[in-house]
Amino acid sequence: MEKRVYNFSAGPAVLPLAVLKEAQRDLLALPGVGASVMEISHRSKAFTAIIEQAEANLRKLLAIPDGYRVLFLQGGAQMQFAMIPMNLLRGTGKTADYITSGSWSKKAVKEAKTQGEVNIAWDGAADNYCRVPKTDELQLTPDAAYAYFTSNETIQGVQFSAEPQTDDVPLVCDASSDILSRPVPIEKYGILYACAQKNAGPAGVTVVIIRDDLVRQSPDDLPSMLSYKVLAEAKSLLNTPPTFAIYMLKLITDWLLDEMGGLEKMEQTNRAKARLLYDVVDQSEGFYLGHAELESRSMMNVPFKLADSELDGTFLQEAQQRGLTALKGHRSVGGCRASIYNAMPREGVVALRDFMLEFCDKHK
Amino acid sequence: MEKRVYNFSAGPAVLPLAVLKEAQRDLLALPGVGASVMEISHRSKAFTAIIEQAEANLRKLLAIPDGYRVLFLQGGAQMQFAMIPMNLLRGTGKTADYITSGSWSKKAVKEAKTQGEVNIAWDGAADNYCRVPKTDELQLTPDAAYAYFTSNETIQGVQFSAEPQTDDVPLVCDASSDILSRPVPIEKYGILYACAQKNAGPAGVTVVIIRDDLVRQSPDDLPSMLSYKVLAEAKSLLNTPPTFAIYMLKLITDWLLDEMGGLEKMEQTNRAKARLLYDVVDQSEGFYLGHAELESRSMMNVPFKLADSELDGTFLQEAQQRGLTALKGHRSVGGCRASIYNAMPREGVVALRDFMLEFCDKHK
Repeated sequence: MEKRVYNFSAGPAVLPLAVLKEAQRDLLALPGVGASVMEISHRSKAFTAIIEQAEANLRKLLAIPDGYRVLFLQGGAQMQFAMIPMNLLRGTGKTADYITSGSWSKKAVKEAKTQGEVNIAWDGAADNYCRVPKTDELQLTPDAAYAYFTSNETIQGVQFSAEPQTDDVPLVCDASSDILSRPVPIEKYGILYACAQKNAGPAGVTVVIIRDDLVRQSPDDLPSMLSYKVLAEAKSLLNTPPTFAIYMLKLITDWLLDEMGGLEKMEQTNRAKARLLYDVVDQSEGFYLGHAELESRSMMNVPFKLADSELDGTFLQEAQQRGLTALKGHRSVGGCRASIYNAMPREGVVALRDFMLEFCDKHK
Repeated sequence: MEKRVYNFSAGPAVLPLAVLKEAQRDLLALPGVGASVMEISHRSKAFTAIIEQAEANLRKLLAIPDGYRVLFLQGGAQMQFAMIPMNLLRGTGKTADYITSGSWSKKAVKEAKTQGEVNIAWDGAADNYCRVPKTDELQLTPDAAYAYFTSNETIQGVQFSAEPQTDDVPLVCDASSDILSRPVPIEKYGILYACAQKNAGPAGVTVVIIRDDLVRQSPDDLPSMLSYKVLAEAKSLLNTPPTFAIYMLKLITDWLLDEMGGLEKMEQTNRAKARLLYDVVDQSEGFYLGHAELESRSMMNVPFKLADSELDGTFLQEAQQRGLTALKGHRSVGGCRASIYNAMPREGVVALRDFMLEFCDKHK
């Protein structure tokens, strides 16, 4: 087999090696089926067992209470940017509150405005999106249709450490880049959703965890594929779902339960991994500069710059030569970014840490 | 490896074994990349080469003229049921003509009606959807927004052998279950689209081939993920596309070009495979009953019944024991259905033919 690199891609991102090996072993024929998981009907017994186990795993890992549906949809987070206001805002005469803490929440606002009235409850633009707001900074609308936030901004590397308080207004969260990285009190949420390709699977499936009363709000004149109500009634099988991506999500959640010991242990592991990198930044005496403020730092995405930006190219090139790949920062922030999702092994982060220390020593 | 069956699933359906083997070989690390195709950015050089090759293969196989875009979208055919009228009908004041030749076109009508005025140009209900219409049976609207048909109805097994004539009205076609099974004169179409999971790949990606002037018609107030214009401008990379499914589609179109010799040869092969089964039906003296009328018979899906329906269970069970699987007919038609897409090898069809002959001899 070709040697695998340590891949710090922001998404699609590294997957657990054990999961890839299992998928590889069974790719031509699922045990007991005699056909690839890609070749069987989404209504077959074999696939029914897979999608039900995927949901059961998510319910166990996230302690999802009764009264919530788990949907497996297509279109990524951007489709949810549209579906949320189509289902919960349009035609209600209400306003939706949006907290804009980075690039992804800004995009969500743009799509929501095609469907109804939006209030920006907080905007991090003045600080160049380097932090999340405190609760007393939020300008919330009483009786809003919902309040929306992005738990982790993949590009800016800012992450909420606790939910914004919105009282009775349903809280809607894009958790695309930190779902399954730590326990979450689902009962505080109206909707928590995530595209899979960072922490939960390959690209092509989006998990939507939605409270029953919100499912019932979908207007009747929506196309079926855009209606939470119709999709929930069909148990995500209104039409053929992305079966292989759901299978991979099942394997990854198996791995989280069986190999990683659940989300509390996963969070400890992730916190320790992140600390390895932030410590290098903090102790580099300004050679490396972090983007996010201390209390808003993401455990998943660590954007940093070299104070001497002329060294960026050398840094990225030498990292690549050592098998540390996809470290280039997003063009809107620049510099470097290390995405260290669940599946990035500690050894990969240690290898990056060691390289960063060495590079700093050499060029300081 | 576990023994593979002959899998007659209507979709997700059998994939070429050579393609599955290549995907399996490279699943942990794409050559030269050191990471799985599932783990790399959709904006990486490696993935850019894959999506560009997938498009180039489709353009070559289908002889897609300049002036057409090729989009790789999510949501399956059902999302297109909504997107087509959202982009081309809503707000135009026009009517869209729909030819309903089976279950899928009926579903398309239901979704279109959420967006605008629909005229049923022909409905096969009176004949229980056993045939496609002749051109002189169509009641078309002059200056319709578009005219819609389903080239092959997967459930009823009826297939158009030529395009309905709609003059200057843009022709829109759901080719989900026969795309790439034969050459198609794309220049006659405004839109030809297909979900991949029958003839073009695994579930999770939908190919939309759309004429430039129709791309430009998308209303500006549509959410980005539902706008052909926005999606085309972003070259299918508005957000993360279903990268693995697109990779598989690239491998399958490679296989069609390199191993199967293109679509003219593929059509000959498919026609010969279908004849093997229809001949058994026709020569069984009423033991097997076909669903579709002779001239409307599908080369892809062969639904048939046993005249003595009490034998259905025995037939399916004995077939399963011989490794001939997924032959149960759709609940709305009953009986049996053999889906024999491109990737079903002739040997599989011969094995089914032989079993059908034997079963008929034994039970007649």
